Amino acid sequence: MKRIAVLTTGGDAPGMNAAIRSVVRYGLNQKLEVMGVFRGWWGLINEELKVFSHRSVSGIINQGGTILKTARCHEFYTEEGQSRAYETVKKYGIDGLAVIGGNGSFTAAHLFGRKYNIPCIGIPASIDNDVNGIDITIGADTAINTALSAIDNIRDTATSMERIFVVEVMGRDCGYIALSVALGGGCEEVMIPERKSDINAICHDIVNGNLRGKMSWIIVVAEGSGNAPDIAKQINEITGLETRPVVLGHIQRGGRPTAISRDLALHLGRAAVDALIRGDSDKVVGFKESKIVSIDFEIAIVKKYFNYENMYKLVKELS
Amino acid sequence: MKRIAVLTTGGDAPGMNAAIRSVVRYGLNQKLEVMGVFRGWWGLINEELKVFSHRSVSGIINQGGTILKTARCHEFYTEEGQSRAYETVKKYGIDGLAVIGGNGSFTAAHLFGRKYNIPCIGIPASIDNDVNGIDITIGADTAINTALSAIDNIRDTATSMERIFVVEVMGRDCGYIALSVALGGGCEEVMIPERKSDINAICHDIVNGNLRGKMSWIIVVAEGSGNAPDIAKQINEITGLETRPVVLGHIQRGGRPTAISRDLALHLGRAAVDALIRGDSDKVVGFKESKIVSIDFEIAIVKKYFNYENMYKLVKELS
Amino acid sequence: MKRIAVLTTGGDAPGMNAAIRSVVRYGLNQKLEVMGVFRGWWGLINEELKVFSHRSVSGIINQGGTILKTARCHEFYTEEGQSRAYETVKKYGIDGLAVIGGNGSFTAAHLFGRKYNIPCIGIPASIDNDVNGIDITIGADTAINTALSAIDNIRDTATSMERIFVVEVMGRDCGYIALSVALGGGCEEVMIPERKSDINAICHDIVNGNLRGKMSWIIVVAEGSGNAPDIAKQINEITGLETRPVVLGHIQRGGRPTAISRDLALHLGRAAVDALIRGDSDKVVGFKESKIVSIDFEIAIVKKYFNYENMYKLVKELS
Amino acid sequence: MKRIAVLTTGGDAPGMNAAIRSVVRYGLNQKLEVMGVFRGWWGLINEELKVFSHRSVSGIINQGGTILKTARCHEFYTEEGQSRAYETVKKYGIDGLAVIGGNGSFTAAHLFGRKYNIPCIGIPASIDNDVNGIDITIGADTAINTALSAIDNIRDTATSMERIFVVEVMGRDCGYIALSVALGGGCEEVMIPERKSDINAICHDIVNGNLRGKMSWIIVVAEGSGNAPDIAKQINEITGLETRPVVLGHIQRGGRPTAISRDLALHLGRAAVDALIRGDSDKVVGFKESKIVSIDFEIAIVKKYFNYENMYKLVKELS
Repeated sequence: MKRIAVLTTGGDAPGMNAAIRSVVRYGLNQKLEVMGVFRGWWGLINEELKVFSHRSVSGIINQGGTILKTARCHEFYTEEGQSRAYETVKKYGIDGLAVIGGNGSFTAAHLFGRKYNIPCIGIPASIDNDVNGIDITIGADTAINTALSAIDNIRDTATSMERIFVVEVMGRDCGYIALSVALGGGCEEVMIPERKSDINAICHDIVNGNLRGKMSWIIVVAEGSGNAPDIAKQINEITGLETRPVVLGHIQRGGRPTAISRDLALHLGRAAVDALIRGDSDKVVGFKESKIVSIDFEIAIVKKYFNYENMYKLVKELS
Repeated sequence: MKRIAVLTTGGDAPGMNAAIRSVVRYGLNQKLEVMGVFRGWWGLINEELKVFSHRSVSGIINQGGTILKTARCHEFYTEEGQSRAYETVKKYGIDGLAVIGGNGSFTAAHLFGRKYNIPCIGIPASIDNDVNGIDITIGADTAINTALSAIDNIRDTATSMERIFVVEVMGRDCGYIALSVALGGGCEEVMIPERKSDINAICHDIVNGNLRGKMSWIIVVAEGSGNAPDIAKQINEITGLETRPVVLGHIQRGGRPTAISRDLALHLGRAAVDALIRGDSDKVVGFKESKIVSIDFEIAIVKKYFNYENMYKLVKELS
Repeated sequence: MKRIAVLTTGGDAPGMNAAIRSVVRYGLNQKLEVMGVFRGWWGLINEELKVFSHRSVSGIINQGGTILKTARCHEFYTEEGQSRAYETVKKYGIDGLAVIGGNGSFTAAHLFGRKYNIPCIGIPASIDNDVNGIDITIGADTAINTALSAIDNIRDTATSMERIFVVEVMGRDCGYIALSVALGGGCEEVMIPERKSDINAICHDIVNGNLRGKMSWIIVVAEGSGNAPDIAKQINEITGLETRPVVLGHIQRGGRPTAISRDLALHLGRAAVDALIRGDSDKVVGFKESKIVSIDFEIAIVKKYFNYENMYKLVKELS
Repeated sequence: MKRIAVLTTGGDAPGMNAAIRSVVRYGLNQKLEVMGVFRGWWGLINEELKVFSHRSVSGIINQGGTILKTARCHEFYTEEGQSRAYETVKKYGIDGLAVIGGNGSFTAAHLFGRKYNIPCIGIPASIDNDVNGIDITIGADTAINTALSAIDNIRDTATSMERIFVVEVMGRDCGYIALSVALGGGCEEVMIPERKSDINAICHDIVNGNLRGKMSWIIVVAEGSGNAPDIAKQINEITGLETRPVVLGHIQRGGRPTAISRDLALHLGRAAVDALIRGDSDKVVGFKESKIVSIDFEIAIVKKYFNYENMYKLVKELS
């Protein structure tokens, strides 16, 4: 292993830059050459890459987004795209790839790495925390704190105006952000894809609460289990009470990474380089129960099993 | 003037609590008794008020929302509602009202104060900055900073993924928040109610920009001049480029007030009490060109004249 | 178990209020009565406590500090103080205590609980993360993020003015905050109590760095391993380079708790009540490797074993 | 006027980058060439400068510090230093300078500009807000909000532990930051250079407050009127009450600029270029009573007259 390359693909997540810094600097520290590839797989196909130095990654540890940029690349799913990407890998003498991204990125790396026998190690970065087999992805803690801060703001109005709010958060098919935010925000209810919600039961609780004098509610909705405007409309129709939707949207993807997101990124960047050096391939590095593990791409990309029950129960017990 | 009352009405704004603190503590300092009325006019109609002490307003200076709560009250627009509110004023010996809120609140205070000859002084608190005759309302600076921080986050993704975003901000019929955010966020375009926007011209700029290699755009839209999802759809249809909408919504109303919002609130709370003591009525206190002024309700509530041209030009010159 | 009491002692930490909320609401949910004791042990000695309801803990989940207040209480270390505290426990029919605090609090609870046979369960809240046998205390993640944000700010000046900064962070005898901040802040060096630092070697690195063009440095110092002004002075004397000290101090103790600090607090509040219900005593509840554990006070209060080596190495590898 | 140069000198302030962006982009917009000079006057002396394009200032609007770096340069105060700087100006055909900085920077620009007949326009950027004749400098609003957020954190501990804190803020000889922070933070007392403080009277108030049950105090000290550790020690000696010092220090200089700091920077960057184009020299552009003004360097650099009395009175009336 003499030269490795690093790329970011899929949706951006806060901490990706810290992961790039770690791969580059730790790689150099281990006497490897490190190349940065721009715009993910597109950059491999189109030969957009360059040799990185220690200085190339200065001042980025606390910046959201990714200096390597990222893109969704349909061409990479074609025979020709992959073949051109492989040409680049050969031409530049790249012995291994560190792929920073989520499930889509790992699926692509799994196919590409096996087909052309290129060692690929995944570094899980996604605000959705939907990578199977590991506890938390780079960026999820930041997204949760951003959403929580938004909920804190909305709570000010909910309490002052005694209103019902339905707040939609990101997370795709995974209710992790929604549950974390609902718990930390002291929210009254949360709707997640893992669990069937009963809008009539929720409305029943709201009306009963109102009779006891509880006038403000925040209901968190994971994007994978409904959309805030529709749910707010339903609640309004059933209860007759004014209900406002808020869709937090893309503010959850950006911003300065939290300590946890940076820490994860720095540890996993090193772990990925170490994995490449020792000859590993086709795997994701991640934290599980406070230890670094590496799991096969094939396991990482199946639908994450998320044991939501305990957390959901706590939200309800404390609301 | 022996006893005054303070209430918050209309939408909540960050800094309302600081204004309450100022009215209460400065009032007590001036040997007045001060009552807090709950839920705005509704509290006057329904006798929900109590005598406040120095301690009643401890620890609220940095909290969003309003401890007095606020409500929209249709009953106050009826003969009977006003008459009941007046009964409360008489019963509790209230000699003057400090009304914290926006244009709707001032319209109501104007009618009520004149009809029953109750001195009413308005303290302008509204994130929309739409009170005529003054430079800035309590809460506007906080809302702008919250929106700006959201834009900074969105910029991370816009740059990393080279995408177009349409971001809708609050402000009702006033483009002040939108322009401030577009300027401070380094946004490429802004659509405000005060100025007719040409979606085709915007799309033309985007396409031309793309040809020069400028791939990411943020277009800020004031809620009074369109909605983000529709505009994003139009841009996508015209240019063929992926365009994402974000509606910032109620996160802009809450949160810890900034220094400016607190400072304004504290100065204007004192100014309102001073105005009541010297026998003023039917007026709003506010800052204009760095000085405290008081202007008639009748002038404050007309549509704000906002000279947007210079700021809009600067947005375009620097984008 | 019919009635329990909750108190906060020792230094305050962000998330204590969330822990109080959890103990109170989950206790009520489990059909217990819950009392809040004010000012820690002092409140038990002086009968400052009251029955809490669901509403007593509304709106505190996102607030720093503790609504129960906290105090250091010398009287509790006397025979008479403990005896009076026990009188209060008997008088109010308190069957168990949830003690939110750090090592000092647990030492006191250990003595008191065993002496009078009162079930006491500790909930670890301390920014220092110095409780042995568990991974992280309530408040530590918040303090680290606050310190990290301060480091980010200082980095702006360090880079712009090409200066050396020595930044002192909290943590008492534990280098956890310092290491986390140094890692996440991309700092060049960190001095912790667990490891002997060599100021001459550090100065040697700085001078060598300068020759290569590296002009700005941030050196993080744990309070337990030196003080920033003295170290800055030494560096200046040895290298001749302008070096500025910053002591972050008490800003690290307050502020809105992060998602992690809230989450921990809410889970551990419930765990403490469950422990009391099932008859446990003389134990701390906490997270270890992502699972809730309970460990004896006697183990929790010994000096924490903190395996700093891996993290320290990473700081140096990436700097 | 064909080519101008921009430089940042003195202490860095948040918003300097926004000002650079404005000078560069507006200058290009007005068909000028714009050069960026590195490390202030040092860069002129040592020929460290380069031609800037529209892209050179992308992505910096929300970043603290200055991409041009800044330095204090003793050589510029020598005949030879100035002469070499002038050589650079001539060699590169620079027709005017936009000097972003504070009083020291303007003093130097005043001397240099007059001596060699180079048009120099100052853009006031300093967290201290100590430039005479204008209302507010770029960076001051950001520093105040940073300090206020620190005070909010400290308040959590002050209230929870019922302690006295002495918090030292920046501002050199100007009490503006201290007063703004004390007012917005709801602090009990503030010591500023403009006003003689009586430590005995403060202690008297504290002791009297304690008797009435007021147990927590925050006293803000401007760096120009004392240092927190000494004052805390005095208060402790006189009152016998535990008193903690906090020196906020360099965290106040960095961080993302607030909306106001960005807005000021963008407007004044344009104003400076306009001033150079119309042939102005030896002046500072700034805001006064919400309007852009330009004032002679000679007036700007005298000690700022700051009318603190009204604000100080308000702090005391509301505490």
